[in-house]
Amino acid sequence: MSNPRKVVELFYDVVSPYSWLGFEVLCRYRNVWNLDLRFRPAYLGGVMHLSGNKPPAIVPNKAIYMATDLDRQAKYCNIPLRFPANPFEAMFEKGSLNAMRFVTAVSEKEKVGDSLVEKVSRELWKRIWSADQDITEPASLSEAGLKAGFSASEVEELLKLAKSQQVKDKLKQATAEAMEHQAFGFPLIVCHMDGKPEAFFGSDRFELMAYCIGEKWLGPQPDKPTAKM
Amino acid sequence: MSNPRKVVELFYDVVSPYSWLGFEVLCRYRNVWNLDLRFRPAYLGGVMHLSGNKPPAIVPNKAIYMATDLDRQAKYCNIPLRFPANPFEAMFEKGSLNAMRFVTAVSEKEKVGDSLVEKVSRELWKRIWSADQDITEPASLSEAGLKAGFSASEVEELLKLAKSQQVKDKLKQATAEAMEHQAFGFPLIVCHMDGKPEAFFGSDRFELMAYCIGEKWLGPQPDKPTAKM
Repeated sequence: MSNPRKVVELFYDVVSPYSWLGFEVLCRYRNVWNLDLRFRPAYLGGVMHLSGNKPPAIVPNKAIYMATDLDRQAKYCNIPLRFPANPFEAMFEKGSLNAMRFVTAVSEKEKVGDSLVEKVSRELWKRIWSADQDITEPASLSEAGLKAGFSASEVEELLKLAKSQQVKDKLKQATAEAMEHQAFGFPLIVCHMDGKPEAFFGSDRFELMAYCIGEKWLGPQPDKPTAKM
Repeated sequence: MSNPRKVVELFYDVVSPYSWLGFEVLCRYRNVWNLDLRFRPAYLGGVMHLSGNKPPAIVPNKAIYMATDLDRQAKYCNIPLRFPANPFEAMFEKGSLNAMRFVTAVSEKEKVGDSLVEKVSRELWKRIWSADQDITEPASLSEAGLKAGFSASEVEELLKLAKSQQVKDKLKQATAEAMEHQAFGFPLIVCHMDGKPEAFFGSDRFELMAYCIGEKWLGPQPDKPTAKM
């Protein structure tokens, strides 16, 4: 008898590099753990404000550590994450509100099985957290949308939709739902076990999460024998 | 040809529950990874002050998450960690300066192979983070010292030594050395690889640490087949 699919929600924002690690690892485990993986694009700025949390990088030693830690983790996870030249500007000055509204607009158009939210999110992470490119301007969002497989006219429509009240409200709603799970940052991974949500913060709780959902952790690259434990 | 022993320093404070997890896991891996494990009792209050960091629990959602996370981790690691009834009082009002001076005094008396620092530290963690007992009063430190194997007269001597300038300075020195590795909290685990220190913060980087030092991570209970990955 096969196990039922486990519903797992991933609350994330593309401005968050740890969210990228968590996103890729969960995508790799979707079939391994038979997950019904639900992407929940949300707004990190809202979560920080609502929870009263402050970005880790305001403590200088944390900022130094975070750079080293992300570099090591990215290598270990085989994710091409690289710090932007000016991470402060990229993360805090420019921010991600437009980008997350764009992803939310994509989620309005997504049909079962076309993985468009996944593809657009990855393209945005690749821009800010690998290629050191902007994710705030319409032209930047267009490029990401085209790379994710939308046509030019679909991208135009998405850019318009991203400014609609409907999409603004949907993003607010996702952020509010993250807050209901006591969010204070992203990624926030919520596993629904027997109707009870179990929330895990960060991209460093997968082994513990596996233990909690009755699965086996095989390292961040489950399909590569060299990374298997 | 056997691998050379790897020098690993553990900077910790018994007021820190994540330090306890890190301490026990490193003790379990000492032989598995052939570690020259060096305990570096230090003062978390000093690190927080010097780094400008704030305790995570001042963000209410972080405090809620920390309780859940520690409970799950303790179960998974098989460590009898339980929150004190009043964690705020235990962690912030009472603090750990006396306790860490006592551990530092023990380190002055330790001889190779007698594991007294390890035993006293564990007894103090068991008091504050399992039995909800005080770790600030001389009587509390005495009990921990007796349980760790010291005689009553040795404990008296340690209590005196803990108040000496020599021990105060040694604790300050250990805290300052943690700061040289850009500490902003504990545990801080410093692996000395080919003369280059690699610092890992927290008790959730062991798998990454294994990857960096060329060893295999077998879960937090490496001697129990059920916990093996």
